[in-house]
Amino acid sequence: MSSQDVQRPICIVGLGLIGGSLLRDLATREHPVYGYNHSTSGARTAIKEGYDVSDDLTGVLQRAEQDTALLVIAVPMHAVSDVLDAICEHAPSCGITDVVSVKSAVYDEICARGLQSRYVGGHPMAGTTKAGWKNSQKDLFIRSAWAITYDYAAQKEEAGEKVDQQWIDTFTDVVRMTGMVRAEAVPVRVDNHDAAVARVSHLPQILAEVLAVVGDHGGILAQSLTAGPFKDGTRVAGTTPKVVKQMCESNAAALVGALDETLDLLQEARDSLDSAEPTIGDLAETGHRARTRIDARSGARKDSVSPIKISSRPVLRLHPGGHGWVAQLKQTESIGGRIEIF
Amino acid sequence: MSSQDVQRPICIVGLGLIGGSLLRDLATREHPVYGYNHSTSGARTAIKEGYDVSDDLTGVLQRAEQDTALLVIAVPMHAVSDVLDAICEHAPSCGITDVVSVKSAVYDEICARGLQSRYVGGHPMAGTTKAGWKNSQKDLFIRSAWAITYDYAAQKEEAGEKVDQQWIDTFTDVVRMTGMVRAEAVPVRVDNHDAAVARVSHLPQILAEVLAVVGDHGGILAQSLTAGPFKDGTRVAGTTPKVVKQMCESNAAALVGALDETLDLLQEARDSLDSAEPTIGDLAETGHRARTRIDARSGARKDSVSPIKISSRPVLRLHPGGHGWVAQLKQTESIGGRIEIF
Repeated sequence: MSSQDVQRPICIVGLGLIGGSLLRDLATREHPVYGYNHSTSGARTAIKEGYDVSDDLTGVLQRAEQDTALLVIAVPMHAVSDVLDAICEHAPSCGITDVVSVKSAVYDEICARGLQSRYVGGHPMAGTTKAGWKNSQKDLFIRSAWAITYDYAAQKEEAGEKVDQQWIDTFTDVVRMTGMVRAEAVPVRVDNHDAAVARVSHLPQILAEVLAVVGDHGGILAQSLTAGPFKDGTRVAGTTPKVVKQMCESNAAALVGALDETLDLLQEARDSLDSAEPTIGDLAETGHRARTRIDARSGARKDSVSPIKISSRPVLRLHPGGHGWVAQLKQTESIGGRIEIF
Repeated sequence: MSSQDVQRPICIVGLGLIGGSLLRDLATREHPVYGYNHSTSGARTAIKEGYDVSDDLTGVLQRAEQDTALLVIAVPMHAVSDVLDAICEHAPSCGITDVVSVKSAVYDEICARGLQSRYVGGHPMAGTTKAGWKNSQKDLFIRSAWAITYDYAAQKEEAGEKVDQQWIDTFTDVVRMTGMVRAEAVPVRVDNHDAAVARVSHLPQILAEVLAVVGDHGGILAQSLTAGPFKDGTRVAGTTPKVVKQMCESNAAALVGALDETLDLLQEARDSLDSAEPTIGDLAETGHRARTRIDARSGARKDSVSPIKISSRPVLRLHPGGHGWVAQLKQTESIGGRIEIF
């Protein structure tokens, strides 16, 4: 264990694409890590591959409590409530994080159980269209943003109260865990997270589904004429429908806002095309500028020809609990920056 | 020149991404090919690379007339009218095809000049987000659909008249030209083409522009949290705005239809999300089914692990002018199939 590693075992509850990929990476680094898979056959497969996995939730949580592990909840949103109940019963003192794609809905469950001082939310912006342990893979998170929430600290700070040491330790460990899998820790409060991912994650998902349906309505001829733009635009419609439903429906409020903006722009384009002098106005220009701006930010990160990939996210080196550190988190959040712990 | 090649020189008017890439491929096969670039510096660059290119349109067309070349119009829609006028004046007997991304607007210009019996429309479903000769490349068209229109033959047939031999020869040469660059010739009438590409080409373009704008509205934090779904969904928003405008605005009627379907589906998703029990209904299921169906058709073509790529489009081997050949074209069109000439 290097001094930059998490200083305790990690216990992952749920070993699908994300939880499974996290387990593989941490195990590869020889960090003490074990997990729970609700599917007996899934657990068996993981064990055969040499991983420390069980299908006994109670046993896994009792073990986590015993060795003060960091708990990572990696189940779909609909299962979070039951897992938290089990944690309250069998692992009442462990620090908790999660990897669920929405953060307000999870935080509501956390608050309902008074677990705020032990909880630091997380969301890795990585994945594939495939689900389940069998599709989990090493190195899934490299250079991806990993959103880390800090509402509890922000609220304490705003109330002029001291942030509990357990929360600070949990926060530190969650940031370190993301570093261990080479992701980039982006601090963000839950509402801001959900508003942002509604735009850049859930809206693209809805648009891909709709585009697939409208393309399909064109029948076999239209399908034969599909090329790159259609294939790229519909790729994520290949995602398991159950996962898509969970994701979008648990972020409904923010997604409705993003959809309203989308509907306005599309209606405007539609109406100006349906006229004597058909035009799409300046949509192509504004779209191109937006895409260029986003590309410029992520370009260095993903498309660099340099063998050493350089992050385009500004970095803040942070001492958790130090003077003004919550203000620093807010500042980093406002510029989409990442943090490192020293 | 093999017996399956075009049996005359090919003259390409306009050497941007598509025209330039076509010139490179045909020249690589040592087929007699030359072209016109309206930009003097662009023409000079091509000449330096060893291609037979000029910036003198009149001279190029007179040469084409002299050696009865097949003319390929590869200019943007707004320039088609001027090019056709020049063709009427300087190359009054050449067969004509084009590579413009809409077909009704071009056919209107053709009909206005009475050129139907010499014209076979074309549209390669290939490209990149980059424009111009400097971005043209070899092998751009491999395994892409290349739509080929045959309205003139269909109308003659329906009127019980014989199709002119010049039209049959032009059709044959256009199909052979697509084969020479390893594209797949898909027969389609202009209205059906425009309706199909509105769904699978122009709608994805509009959605990409809108998604880029809505994502950008999320500011620097949302941009930092973008991942694969957003990047794929906005890729084609990187296309030169002028090209996007031309493409979408010249296919306005069909695109409005596709946008209406899209708006209905999005509004429905938005409304059912904005309720006490937020849901996206069965959108994820129908989108997934549509995507799977389209994938299944194109899968063998693009993702095959076999070293020999096999087309998933059914093939019809056709003898142009033979008994019932126009009916065969219609049948092939109805299943999005491709044709080969024997």
